[in-house]
Amino acid sequence: MDKETLLLTVAVLGGTGKEGKGLAYRWAKAGYNVLIGSRSSEKAVTAASEILEMLDGGGSVVGTSNVEAAAQANIIVLTVPYAAHRETLESVKGSVAGKLFIDVTVPLVPPKVSKVQMPPAGSAAQEAREILGEGVEVAAAFQNISHEHLLTDGDVECDVLVTGTSKNARQEAIRLVEAAGLIGWDAGPIENSVVVEGLTSVLIHINRQYGSTHAGIRITGAKNK
Amino acid sequence: MDKETLLLTVAVLGGTGKEGKGLAYRWAKAGYNVLIGSRSSEKAVTAASEILEMLDGGGSVVGTSNVEAAAQANIIVLTVPYAAHRETLESVKGSVAGKLFIDVTVPLVPPKVSKVQMPPAGSAAQEAREILGEGVEVAAAFQNISHEHLLTDGDVECDVLVTGTSKNARQEAIRLVEAAGLIGWDAGPIENSVVVEGLTSVLIHINRQYGSTHAGIRITGAKNK
Repeated sequence: MDKETLLLTVAVLGGTGKEGKGLAYRWAKAGYNVLIGSRSSEKAVTAASEILEMLDGGGSVVGTSNVEAAAQANIIVLTVPYAAHRETLESVKGSVAGKLFIDVTVPLVPPKVSKVQMPPAGSAAQEAREILGEGVEVAAAFQNISHEHLLTDGDVECDVLVTGTSKNARQEAIRLVEAAGLIGWDAGPIENSVVVEGLTSVLIHINRQYGSTHAGIRITGAKNK
Repeated sequence: MDKETLLLTVAVLGGTGKEGKGLAYRWAKAGYNVLIGSRSSEKAVTAASEILEMLDGGGSVVGTSNVEAAAQANIIVLTVPYAAHRETLESVKGSVAGKLFIDVTVPLVPPKVSKVQMPPAGSAAQEAREILGEGVEVAAAFQNISHEHLLTDGDVECDVLVTGTSKNARQEAIRLVEAAGLIGWDAGPIENSVVVEGLTSVLIHINRQYGSTHAGIRITGAKNK
């Protein structure tokens, strides 16, 4: 655990969900202080103790409310279903100034989840940006990762495309991608989030068409190190 | 050359450009009758003879106008720059009924070509659909392939995501992808084209950030055969 990591507290809002829990597990293992946020603090406390158990006690994971988690963290990661996206953003809006905000949300519209359907802002990440205002750096990442992969220590056979409001935001987010044991790529400005979020619908379609369960992507022809 | 292929004539509109020429070369090599279309018939004739030379005469490639090429073909492939997209579509609109139309266009908006900027229709492919009307099946493919790869016989290290107005349109387009020696995936309805077209901007961004020239993608975790 290096000094830089030691200082960082990551709030995983919606961290009782499978995706959030998987990310929380991997970051706690990498030495980050992790706060699991949820609408229900009790559920967050339960999720935190489950993760601590997986870590054999060797990590810092605390469960609390979304609002409290956001207030105490340096980095805030949003992993709620799209139906709770706006509401959760509004609830933590007061605690995000000067922090890095990472949106994991995919705006799937049931029942046609294999068809790309973006909100008027252009993407969930751009919607988050609109709600949170100009003072906060927003990045978006992890939308294409199957949650089944995250709660194991195995390799994840899917790269992470990282978009964001600035190069700095993307680089900070890529550090978290790598801390989670994944390969991250700077995929450009926040406007490019539509590609990454929409890719989740494409991958769901591929899973259905080809009988797979974990379709993902790899970037070819480039080296990220 | 099987009988099915023998019957098929593919028009490559804008086939004097690098992308179109590369696809034309590969399809002619696979046994399709290829018509190179261009605004200038003379340029199309020149491009056709260049391709024939590469094939050592072993193929059928004819150069003509875009309008004539579209009229004579069973499958029409549009490979013009986005600036000529609408105009070319309007010019061939009378010849597309009952045919498969494949749009290769990426709506890049210079100078910010690494930022996703889609037209009001949602994507170039959806715009094509609007212009051509309901009577024609529209698929979209090949947007992420570097043209440098197509004019050689080497492997292309990038999969092709195929969207389209029907499963049948996507399957027919995938047949052309495979005839060109590439790996194709059914990527869902035409609305998903925004992902594939936008991915080109993401790949341009990756090339700039990581000093590469041919970033591409591969689908992982699924088998297409």
